[in-house]
Amino acid sequence: MISSMLRRYIPVFDWGRTYNKHQFSNDMIAAIIVTIMLIPQSLAYALLAGLPPEMGLYASILPIVLYAIFGTSRALAVGPVAVVSLMTAAAIGQVAEAGSMGYAMAALTLAMLSGAMLLMMGVFKLGFLANFLSHPVIAGFITASGVLIAASQLKHILGVDAHGHTLWEIVVSLVRHLPETNPVTLVIGVAATLFLFWVRKGLKPLLKRLGLGPRPADVITKAGPVAAVVATTVVVWALGLDQQQVAIVGEVPQSLPPLTLPSFSLDLMTTLAVPALLVSIIGFVESVSVAQTLAAKKRQRIDPDQELIGLGAANLGAAFTGGYPVTGGFARSVVNFDAGAETPAAGAFTAVGLAIAAVALTPLIFYLPKATLAATIIVAVLSLVDFSILTRTWGYSRKDFTAVAATIILTLGFGVEVGVSAGVALSVLLFLFKTSRPHIAEVGLVPGTEHFRNINRHKVLTNPALLTIRIDESLYFANARFLEDYVYDRVVGDDALKHVVFMCSAVNEVDMSALESLEAINHRLSDMGLKLHLSEVKGPVMDRLKRSHFLEELSGEVFLSQYHAQAKLAPVEDAPQPISSAI
Amino acid sequence: MISSMLRRYIPVFDWGRTYNKHQFSNDMIAAIIVTIMLIPQSLAYALLAGLPPEMGLYASILPIVLYAIFGTSRALAVGPVAVVSLMTAAAIGQVAEAGSMGYAMAALTLAMLSGAMLLMMGVFKLGFLANFLSHPVIAGFITASGVLIAASQLKHILGVDAHGHTLWEIVVSLVRHLPETNPVTLVIGVAATLFLFWVRKGLKPLLKRLGLGPRPADVITKAGPVAAVVATTVVVWALGLDQQQVAIVGEVPQSLPPLTLPSFSLDLMTTLAVPALLVSIIGFVESVSVAQTLAAKKRQRIDPDQELIGLGAANLGAAFTGGYPVTGGFARSVVNFDAGAETPAAGAFTAVGLAIAAVALTPLIFYLPKATLAATIIVAVLSLVDFSILTRTWGYSRKDFTAVAATIILTLGFGVEVGVSAGVALSVLLFLFKTSRPHIAEVGLVPGTEHFRNINRHKVLTNPALLTIRIDESLYFANARFLEDYVYDRVVGDDALKHVVFMCSAVNEVDMSALESLEAINHRLSDMGLKLHLSEVKGPVMDRLKRSHFLEELSGEVFLSQYHAQAKLAPVEDAPQPISSAI
Repeated sequence: MISSMLRRYIPVFDWGRTYNKHQFSNDMIAAIIVTIMLIPQSLAYALLAGLPPEMGLYASILPIVLYAIFGTSRALAVGPVAVVSLMTAAAIGQVAEAGSMGYAMAALTLAMLSGAMLLMMGVFKLGFLANFLSHPVIAGFITASGVLIAASQLKHILGVDAHGHTLWEIVVSLVRHLPETNPVTLVIGVAATLFLFWVRKGLKPLLKRLGLGPRPADVITKAGPVAAVVATTVVVWALGLDQQQVAIVGEVPQSLPPLTLPSFSLDLMTTLAVPALLVSIIGFVESVSVAQTLAAKKRQRIDPDQELIGLGAANLGAAFTGGYPVTGGFARSVVNFDAGAETPAAGAFTAVGLAIAAVALTPLIFYLPKATLAATIIVAVLSLVDFSILTRTWGYSRKDFTAVAATIILTLGFGVEVGVSAGVALSVLLFLFKTSRPHIAEVGLVPGTEHFRNINRHKVLTNPALLTIRIDESLYFANARFLEDYVYDRVVGDDALKHVVFMCSAVNEVDMSALESLEAINHRLSDMGLKLHLSEVKGPVMDRLKRSHFLEELSGEVFLSQYHAQAKLAPVEDAPQPISSAI
Repeated sequence: MISSMLRRYIPVFDWGRTYNKHQFSNDMIAAIIVTIMLIPQSLAYALLAGLPPEMGLYASILPIVLYAIFGTSRALAVGPVAVVSLMTAAAIGQVAEAGSMGYAMAALTLAMLSGAMLLMMGVFKLGFLANFLSHPVIAGFITASGVLIAASQLKHILGVDAHGHTLWEIVVSLVRHLPETNPVTLVIGVAATLFLFWVRKGLKPLLKRLGLGPRPADVITKAGPVAAVVATTVVVWALGLDQQQVAIVGEVPQSLPPLTLPSFSLDLMTTLAVPALLVSIIGFVESVSVAQTLAAKKRQRIDPDQELIGLGAANLGAAFTGGYPVTGGFARSVVNFDAGAETPAAGAFTAVGLAIAAVALTPLIFYLPKATLAATIIVAVLSLVDFSILTRTWGYSRKDFTAVAATIILTLGFGVEVGVSAGVALSVLLFLFKTSRPHIAEVGLVPGTEHFRNINRHKVLTNPALLTIRIDESLYFANARFLEDYVYDRVVGDDALKHVVFMCSAVNEVDMSALESLEAINHRLSDMGLKLHLSEVKGPVMDRLKRSHFLEELSGEVFLSQYHAQAKLAPVEDAPQPISSAI
């Protein structure tokens, strides 16, 4: 009993019991590969968030362990990710100056708020909230963020000091500082960028041609960023380029993640509440979609509400060990998965690896040029940028296109928070707008069947005494009046008409407002000497209607099927055909 | 051409051309009755809004004329109404002290903003926006407002000085000032209230028993408030009660509506923007529902978008002639209608009557006690109070009940603006929440028909090789993932299963997110060796799907009807019955 509870809420007790040697070795190998990849990445994303590099490492250690304990995905790798790092920078940039003590403190607080929110959402099973982010809006947001991130890193490549949270601000600021470009930094930055692009595109095929197996080829490719880091660090150290204003990482404390206390200032927390919510939801959505993609490949399932708890724990962990908001990253998780990670233990081993790095390797990155980290970020995020979502939605649905376009433009033009909020709001409003003006079809009998279709799209049989209206939407307050107007406009002056049937096969709800409209229509039609009938009313809707007086007042009847209605009220000539006689 | 344009946008050119003597006399009689009723009412509502009484009269003169020119309803009477007066008080109370010059100025500005907004909404045909206020939410809001209004007037009955925009504030303030109650005022106030209630309930029957015809009886009843005004005024004047601190109306300028200029201070306008929007929408909704009710009785139609223009013009008129926000009132319009008004000209005549009153009668109301006006307000608004909406929605739909209850509680507890905004937001959220977790039914063939119904509700025929899922909701981002989970949970471990059919008779839309989910389901099912089919896909949805690659990738087919699908994929034994053979 207790143990089943434990297994339910702390999955580690589930997979932990059956953990074996084979899984261990696989997890170990995966951990090594991921660790190699995460060291530069963690430093880089901290830089992107405007935080000291070690915070990136710290944010990858305890959070990974906590997620391994509470999360449900076997392969998800939690830590700093590009988009969330950018959102963090945007959020805490409003309350403190980058580099200041208050700035780091705000990052901890943001992580704590986000962790608490995720935890709450998990406890109250609010995972479904993430569904209100439409896929196209997410795609558009990620793409726009990728562009913003790449742009924001150019300053490190140029070795200048530029700022801004919108594309416009960033570009203006870059142009203004262009004259101050540091040629040495530029050379390093461009070289590193080109090298990393080549590693991504050209190295693996080359290694294969050189006869390496896919696995080692993979490991070496993943080690690309590390190579860039080592090479450029050595060059800067050997040639003393830091004397020529090449910005370097510099002193990084040599320690395990410190115990830190976020600020509980009500003032700060209220300012950060909305950003924290956005960070939580975006982080959750990104994480869940990655986790689901990977789980599907192994026929596993993940539990979104438990994922919320896992991510919540991870973020609280980050808040109290010198980190900043984290989530399940796409790149690292895929690497973890491809590398053969079998259980969350792989994550735990990765954490150990990073802890060792934080203790032992930090002195070695003193001379690491920031330009190299910027290069790794740029190469990483440009793979997120995919404007094809615009063309795909344009072809498929103008509504989706509008939402995506708005998301992209607003994200680039007004920053991540405005962008994603507007995207969500817009997609909801567009949906409401559509449902408020539902598609309504006049239908007739398809010859040789008992099936009714739109008279404008199919050759169907009708009887002038009977008007059948198929309402293609749930009836609720936003479209109640629309239906009234439609019916009145249609029936006025149609003298042959005796019966009006609402075919309710697509009506999934009739709320109080719609009920009142139906009553109004019923009365108005009987004043005109017309009978109102219903057909194919769904069970749940019928239950609802039975609780009102509508059915007593209804001038006509309720038919199980439209076919029954037609047969009883106004038969149409139809030669019986094989299909309709027997199966 | 031009003239038809004119008739379209300025309806007066439409009904004006055919105006005749008969209509004139009817309009005249109606105008007289309405004028008698409007004089005290206009003064009273101005008092409710915390404005000088004459502003109530001014708000009823030009606006009526402008509506008569631009409006489409034949019987609607425009002017100050209870709820909008209360909202005005709440809105401008935030920016200025009641009684101050800035307060009146704010009222003009609010009217101007509201007028401009209504006009804009009309020009851009945004009348449908009003539909997002569900009927129950409106009913709850009106009821709660009625309570607030009645409570806010008690101070005039007690002759004390109390304030507050929420029930709690008002009650507390009243209790605190209770000791200062002015006995004389109390007597006048209570007497007037009882008298007016008696007029409303008891007088008409009495007159009928005395042998009066319904029309004169009606006129006399409507004159009740006037009688109360005259009587109490004379009493106060004769006994010099104003010397005993009985609050009286006092000096009222004797003039036609003055030309006034609202403030164009950007500061003030931004503060009042949201309140103005709420005033506009609430006013519009109240007005339109009244107009539609009355139009329906005469088989006339009103054009909501033209109504917006009419009300917009009326409010702009109020803003520039010393008035405050106005709309079509229920009581006055019904009176106008019952009194036999045939065209908007009746409104114009009423305006003349009120103009005469403003010029000639104002000196006579110097001694009019405010308690009498308060009494007329209380008696008028208590007829709006109807808590039965709570019981009706409780019985019919918990969702509607929640929205109503929240609206009432929040309106009473936090004032009109919070109340109505919360009501709208909540009803929308509840709708979204429901659509995000759609009803999904497994269906089978109803014996003797070609009709399919829920296997849990009907005796139906099924074939274990075929699973038919009827999705009772449009598929969009908010419920796309829900469907995925449902299908996977259902099919796992069902070995007899070969085909899955989505019966799309209730699917009115498939957006990009849902399309991606369908693709995912399709792939996952074929991995499991199951074919996915669609049936009864609607025309608009089919058009949409054809624009994607989904149909090529679909492992199964798309069937015109579920019956065809069953017949082709997995026939079921069914003895043919009369109904299915021929009509």
